[in-house]
Amino acid sequence: MTLNTPSTILKDTGRVVDIHTHVYVPSYLQLLRERLQVPRILPPLDPDDEASLERLVILPGEDNDVTTANGRPVTNGFSDVGEKLRFMDQHGIDISVISLANPWLDFLPDTEATYTTARNINCEIQLMCDQSPERLYSFGVLPLVNIQASIKEVENISRLGSMRGVIMGTHGCEGRGLDDPALVPLFQAIADNNQIIFLHPHYGIPINSGSALDTSGNEKGHALQLALGFPMETTIAVTRLVLSGIFDKVPHLKLMLAHSGGTLPFLAGRIDSCVAHDGTIADSLQHPPSWYLKKMYYDAVIYHDVGILATARFVDPKHIMFGTDHPFFPPPGDDTAKPKRWLSVDSNLEALDHAALDHETKRGILGENACRLLNL
Amino acid sequence: MTLNTPSTILKDTGRVVDIHTHVYVPSYLQLLRERLQVPRILPPLDPDDEASLERLVILPGEDNDVTTANGRPVTNGFSDVGEKLRFMDQHGIDISVISLANPWLDFLPDTEATYTTARNINCEIQLMCDQSPERLYSFGVLPLVNIQASIKEVENISRLGSMRGVIMGTHGCEGRGLDDPALVPLFQAIADNNQIIFLHPHYGIPINSGSALDTSGNEKGHALQLALGFPMETTIAVTRLVLSGIFDKVPHLKLMLAHSGGTLPFLAGRIDSCVAHDGTIADSLQHPPSWYLKKMYYDAVIYHDVGILATARFVDPKHIMFGTDHPFFPPPGDDTAKPKRWLSVDSNLEALDHAALDHETKRGILGENACRLLNL
Repeated sequence: MTLNTPSTILKDTGRVVDIHTHVYVPSYLQLLRERLQVPRILPPLDPDDEASLERLVILPGEDNDVTTANGRPVTNGFSDVGEKLRFMDQHGIDISVISLANPWLDFLPDTEATYTTARNINCEIQLMCDQSPERLYSFGVLPLVNIQASIKEVENISRLGSMRGVIMGTHGCEGRGLDDPALVPLFQAIADNNQIIFLHPHYGIPINSGSALDTSGNEKGHALQLALGFPMETTIAVTRLVLSGIFDKVPHLKLMLAHSGGTLPFLAGRIDSCVAHDGTIADSLQHPPSWYLKKMYYDAVIYHDVGILATARFVDPKHIMFGTDHPFFPPPGDDTAKPKRWLSVDSNLEALDHAALDHETKRGILGENACRLLNL
Repeated sequence: MTLNTPSTILKDTGRVVDIHTHVYVPSYLQLLRERLQVPRILPPLDPDDEASLERLVILPGEDNDVTTANGRPVTNGFSDVGEKLRFMDQHGIDISVISLANPWLDFLPDTEATYTTARNINCEIQLMCDQSPERLYSFGVLPLVNIQASIKEVENISRLGSMRGVIMGTHGCEGRGLDDPALVPLFQAIADNNQIIFLHPHYGIPINSGSALDTSGNEKGHALQLALGFPMETTIAVTRLVLSGIFDKVPHLKLMLAHSGGTLPFLAGRIDSCVAHDGTIADSLQHPPSWYLKKMYYDAVIYHDVGILATARFVDPKHIMFGTDHPFFPPPGDDTAKPKRWLSVDSNLEALDHAALDHETKRGILGENACRLLNL
């Protein structure tokens, strides 16, 4: 089963910018190695085999299921700047805006040490970008276990030259969600500092293992959790954030949504309709939910032309930006014959190539929109 | 906040067919009245007020939350054929294919009495259709607690002149899901009898109340569960069904998906990509998941042009069919000034009106596709 052939879309484009591309800085990898429960890094399965790699285990079910029993192999691409630049060269990417990958810092306690961990990670990310300042920019990470400490870190991030905003999961502070009223001052600080939030799913939706709708731990591995659980997580969190009225309180808050908004461009009409039929919610908002969703920014990590076109019909296409999700989804199959170009990247390029959009719009999505929005 | 204005789309169309329209037959209402736990029907809040109606409570959280504390008012439209025909006349609908609404029969025990309940409901639905045989067709209901009894009921349904298939939830037999191998003989019987499955969500996805991603019982009422939980439920159940390889085993199985497939037209590329990167799943299927998803049929209950256009780009538009979800989503607001046309219906008509599709395609979606597929 193959998904596509190598793309030719990169001809005649302006600068190509990847706004969805992750790193695990060395100190963060070390932190995960020292942990005794998920999320954590486990040693290679076969310590005598040099090709056997450490394994990052994020999801609680990952240790037990069949197809992902070993977690994600921790490749050089996780933390090595040279490897990131090589990947960019292989795929014609001029600029990457790198961000720490999940699970970020939610699992740490509310202590000064955690605030320092966030600060050190941001410092390390800045130092990575300094190795190729023309090509590498970044989003910082917050110690979300404490809102005041997070506000201080937003101010610190404003002083780091490569940084343009923060990456954030969906759980908020201590699992209270993004519609937690306590977060409003943090959102205000982020907007006041002219930063953008890159909103990214975390663990997928938490449906009980074994239920008819379980996506997380059944015999199908975590493909379902990645394919469905992640976009659904984004969809629920952002909808709850919208219904909290945050954009009436902080109108200049900028959000960029991972994976083309999860499912929001497709479900926006249904959300509007359900809210319009529920007076209590409708009356609490100045506009229908889709009005707020159209103010947001969306990456183009959606892997087919139907999805990218729907996103471009829903939102001003200038709000859409190319991404790769590197270092995840490396080419499937045997290690001995890995192609230089990644199937996952080409899927997204071909989707854009096939979408019924004009060349200027595609150029914008590939790079110019990100350059303008993030001042790259 | 208003969503739209009355539609003019119904000019110059052929026959208009509503394939997503529900009934609660009187014996089923009585069964729900006699129950002491959800799902059940509770008496009017004010028994002295004639305008106060019985209330259908389906979701466990409904008794407690703020905006939907009273459940759904049980209007005449739930069970009265005259009311159904009046609604059809008001909206220019020529033919309705009626089906029992959720929660169907999952909550009943595996007994002969349950099989008889299913048979009696199907008989009642047939008698409803007999009151206007040119305008009313139907989908039957199965006693899914027992697969052999369900197969027998499929054969019975084939003898009922108005029936064209069965409506089915996502939980399968005893909550084991639609990818339960025990269901294969039932799917085979449905296909052999040239029936279609109208796959419909049930309770929404079961995320624990109080979590950051809860959609079911928080202070936002059940608007979130309807807006997000229902389409996500369909998406997960159908994806699991596809990954089970059912369509390699029963190639002629026909499924029609409620709410334009939940989110499947938007997520199909991501599902293909995640499966392509997981060899164990990919090797178990003859085709990528989207190949199977494109064989299915989709209703047009999606409430905006972005969604209907994405569905029509994903699947052959001849596989898409208009629906209303009547008697749910009656016009919001005060009972004293109810408009004759329903906002929920006009949202779907306007979506189709605004979608970049040619007139023939729209005509097909409005009725001709259903007439051809279901031999109406």
